[in-house]
Amino acid sequence: MKGVFITFEGIEGSGKSTQMRLLADSLASLGKDCLLTREPGGPPISERIRDILLDADNHAMLPETEVLLYAASRAQHTGQWIIPALKEGKIVLCDRYYDSTSAYQGAARSLNRDFILPLTDFATFHTVPDLTFLLDLPVEQGLARINSRQLDRLERESVDFHQRVRQEYLELATRHAERFTVLDAALSKQEIHARILDKVLTQLGVCNA
Amino acid sequence: MKGVFITFEGIEGSGKSTQMRLLADSLASLGKDCLLTREPGGPPISERIRDILLDADNHAMLPETEVLLYAASRAQHTGQWIIPALKEGKIVLCDRYYDSTSAYQGAARSLNRDFILPLTDFATFHTVPDLTFLLDLPVEQGLARINSRQLDRLERESVDFHQRVRQEYLELATRHAERFTVLDAALSKQEIHARILDKVLTQLGVCNA
Repeated sequence: MKGVFITFEGIEGSGKSTQMRLLADSLASLGKDCLLTREPGGPPISERIRDILLDADNHAMLPETEVLLYAASRAQHTGQWIIPALKEGKIVLCDRYYDSTSAYQGAARSLNRDFILPLTDFATFHTVPDLTFLLDLPVEQGLARINSRQLDRLERESVDFHQRVRQEYLELATRHAERFTVLDAALSKQEIHARILDKVLTQLGVCNA
Repeated sequence: MKGVFITFEGIEGSGKSTQMRLLADSLASLGKDCLLTREPGGPPISERIRDILLDADNHAMLPETEVLLYAASRAQHTGQWIIPALKEGKIVLCDRYYDSTSAYQGAARSLNRDFILPLTDFATFHTVPDLTFLLDLPVEQGLARINSRQLDRLERESVDFHQRVRQEYLELATRHAERFTVLDAALSKQEIHARILDKVLTQLGVCNA
């Protein structure tokens, strides 16, 4: 028995978490067993790494340290939670996965991509999402949506930084069209949800009534 | 102006820290400016990563997570402390560096070495020690020396694990004979110190009176 691995990607404020919750509710009402999780984070060791990554006091963090911490957190998360859940046949919904590393550390921080690819393979045990939903939104709109809450270390980056993130996401979606679905995050919550649910039910081989 | 980078390696209980302090004292009495540091650790971000690595409660840590956390800690340590100190012409003394990763994570945990090499290059910004002192000791003797104090997560590994670590260290010393000096850790503190000091003064181009 093999589960389904679904990831949500997008710039800050694009509505990933909301859509993940809506999908989980719909799947639960169909009796589908889901694991809801997020990156960086997951099991306790990964959450401790998350605390270091998002701590706004860690100004001195080098881009190399950052990408390695994401990889460490992901290795623990994937090996301890995601792979076992998929083996049990569960649907795993994950708020951000390795496409975030390509976008945030690879493109926006200009780290060496020749290294990021083998790093990702190692940290994920070669686990690839079955479906990835990219909630796409102009950077200014995304940042405006989150302006009201306290910003973490990565959210404080410049508009230009987030612009490079968005651009890389769109390129990833083209390069991996077999698993990516790009959604206009300016649409209504319910409309986006309907499109996501439709894709997921097709993947599950369930008729969407 | 370019400093000198000196690392100390060996199994637990081999006397690395003691020898590092003795060397630092001798160099200080000669008016040489040293940075004393250790891995995992160094700057605050690296120390926070160290706390996760050595926490005896983190039984669930996967070998892949471990090697990536060491690499993250090393990247921050090397970039923020070691490279700037060497640029200022300082002598940097470091208790463990990447040879520990080859020995503990590579050999003893049997992780893929084809990945550990590029990982190390990335995490060290291609920084290689000028001198590495390996304090060699039979595993049983090393473990007996530390039995009296509280053991951390790595120290609790089996004798067989530490045997593989020792074997890998000896192989590294042969492979990188240009920078390694193997010392019999069963010799007296003062005798080992005299040999280390002699090597270091030769490296520094100072006559040992």
